Amino acid sequence: MDEKDQITYAADIVSIKEAHRRIGPYIHRTPVLTSGSLDSLAGKQLFFKCECFQKGGAFKIRGATNAVLSLEDDQVAKGVVTHSSGNHAAALSLAAKLRGIPAYIVIPKNAPKCKVDNVKRYGGQIIWSETTVQSREAVASKVQQETGAVLVHPFNDKRIISGQGTISLELLEQIPEIDLIIVPISGGGLISGVTLGAKAIKPSIRIVAAEPKGADDAAQSKAAGRIVTLPHTNTIADGLRAFLGDLTWPVVRDLVDDIITVDDREIVEAMKLCYEILKVAIEPSGAIGLAAVLSNQFRNNAAWKNCNKVGIIISGGNLDLNVLWESFS
Amino acid sequence: MDEKDQITYAADIVSIKEAHRRIGPYIHRTPVLTSGSLDSLAGKQLFFKCECFQKGGAFKIRGATNAVLSLEDDQVAKGVVTHSSGNHAAALSLAAKLRGIPAYIVIPKNAPKCKVDNVKRYGGQIIWSETTVQSREAVASKVQQETGAVLVHPFNDKRIISGQGTISLELLEQIPEIDLIIVPISGGGLISGVTLGAKAIKPSIRIVAAEPKGADDAAQSKAAGRIVTLPHTNTIADGLRAFLGDLTWPVVRDLVDDIITVDDREIVEAMKLCYEILKVAIEPSGAIGLAAVLSNQFRNNAAWKNCNKVGIIISGGNLDLNVLWESFS
Repeated sequence: MDEKDQITYAADIVSIKEAHRRIGPYIHRTPVLTSGSLDSLAGKQLFFKCECFQKGGAFKIRGATNAVLSLEDDQVAKGVVTHSSGNHAAALSLAAKLRGIPAYIVIPKNAPKCKVDNVKRYGGQIIWSETTVQSREAVASKVQQETGAVLVHPFNDKRIISGQGTISLELLEQIPEIDLIIVPISGGGLISGVTLGAKAIKPSIRIVAAEPKGADDAAQSKAAGRIVTLPHTNTIADGLRAFLGDLTWPVVRDLVDDIITVDDREIVEAMKLCYEILKVAIEPSGAIGLAAVLSNQFRNNAAWKNCNKVGIIISGGNLDLNVLWESFS
Repeated sequence: MDEKDQITYAADIVSIKEAHRRIGPYIHRTPVLTSGSLDSLAGKQLFFKCECFQKGGAFKIRGATNAVLSLEDDQVAKGVVTHSSGNHAAALSLAAKLRGIPAYIVIPKNAPKCKVDNVKRYGGQIIWSETTVQSREAVASKVQQETGAVLVHPFNDKRIISGQGTISLELLEQIPEIDLIIVPISGGGLISGVTLGAKAIKPSIRIVAAEPKGADDAAQSKAAGRIVTLPHTNTIADGLRAFLGDLTWPVVRDLVDDIITVDDREIVEAMKLCYEILKVAIEPSGAIGLAAVLSNQFRNNAAWKNCNKVGIIISGGNLDLNVLWESFS
């Protein structure tokens, strides 16, 4: 029996199925889209799980709702608090609204306006921080002490990971024959949940992470065999700038089969295909899975030669489009 | 027995069901999306039938495929020809490719580039015309004589109308409780098919057309009780500039319950909501149904007070987005 068999990960198929029962009435079962034109480009059959159509415009509502509904009444009486560049922030605001409790949201100054607007729309109370992870965490900690609110971390949390894992239950029910799933990676909450869910249902399935070259801490971590953080990040994919946590790292280390990194030019090219061919309005982080499947790093990897039915998780669709609207006026 | 009972319209539930069986293997069953935020804005429960996700990016493939597959071998041996501002053009090219015959496409010079690109992508042979209906028809007629190709009219054709009507079969299967459907109107092929299909399945259902103020020939026709054409049109909705034909007019006259007109500002506002809230990448014509349901003309109409579950057909998603991509470079 080797070491891996003894590891207990942060979530499992039981906690993921529990999460799905808990959040089912409050989330969308998002559709899976396909495109003959994109299949031809990729040389694979692609299945796009469109979490951009999820409530709040991203998958984050799954984990946030699971976390907020899991808490006892006395735990949440004073509200919830988090720090997030945007999509988890909006999701937690929405989940808190559902439960009738306040949500305190620490947002870095460089968050996209549309994501901040979503937080306001769902009634979250915004507290600004600097852009570094250190500042975000310090401000959240201060708010937590002052308000007595419960911290709901954006990814390093069992309830969050279990909630995000519900995507696998739906996707493998919608398209059981998928043999590989490509998942954006940032802090690792999404990919941990998806991996733990999918490999429990279908052990032969492969999971590939897609990461921006300008924030490739996960690829570096996997290569080094330990969590690597970066002094700074530089990518258009504003949702993919966080680093792995101690709950997500073991899943990435042991169960994620590979990490493909792509540059911002490839991400924009994939966004263009998503808007113009697939007709989905997505954010850069949401396009990275398509960018990965079209990259040479993926195409030239013999390990994926026999994987022909590829699930791609389009994680979210919150993008400032003012330049487009101004062009019509 | 009044006069209406004696009228036979261009399609019926039999021809529509036949069309669905014929085209089923070649089209997408498009998903229906919902949004709590848009429901709140409209004060109704909205169900968006997303034909922007259809093959070719618009509903047009339904009618075009039905027409091309309905023809006998000797009829289509020399190919098909049409004139279209874009979406029917691409759809006919795709349908012809399916059958291995040439498609000759007459396109007015002012068609959006992305629609012309779609025609090229699907292997259609492009012949340019001036922008008027007269020029489009004259050039198509000439091509028809020279090549021996069969004309497949974009809307004034029983097979086209039956094909577009398949949307109703799907929509009322997906959401049977819908009590009103809002449909963009141009030449009337889409709304005729949808109306004949929906009212056969559910006679109590109401059908409302949405039309741009700058091309309001259908509203004027309905008011005058005869087909009215306009000397010129002026609207951002490039897919909604055609006039009714003799096969579509009787349906609009007798069975379409009302026509709501909206201006270009309202169309752009609805587009913005579609991109930013619903996360679908659509063209102006595709947004007009949402614009109509949000208009005062609709809200203040007592006839729709009890219609609370509204189907909206998002007709297509082919829009030039270069201004957006340039902003990333």
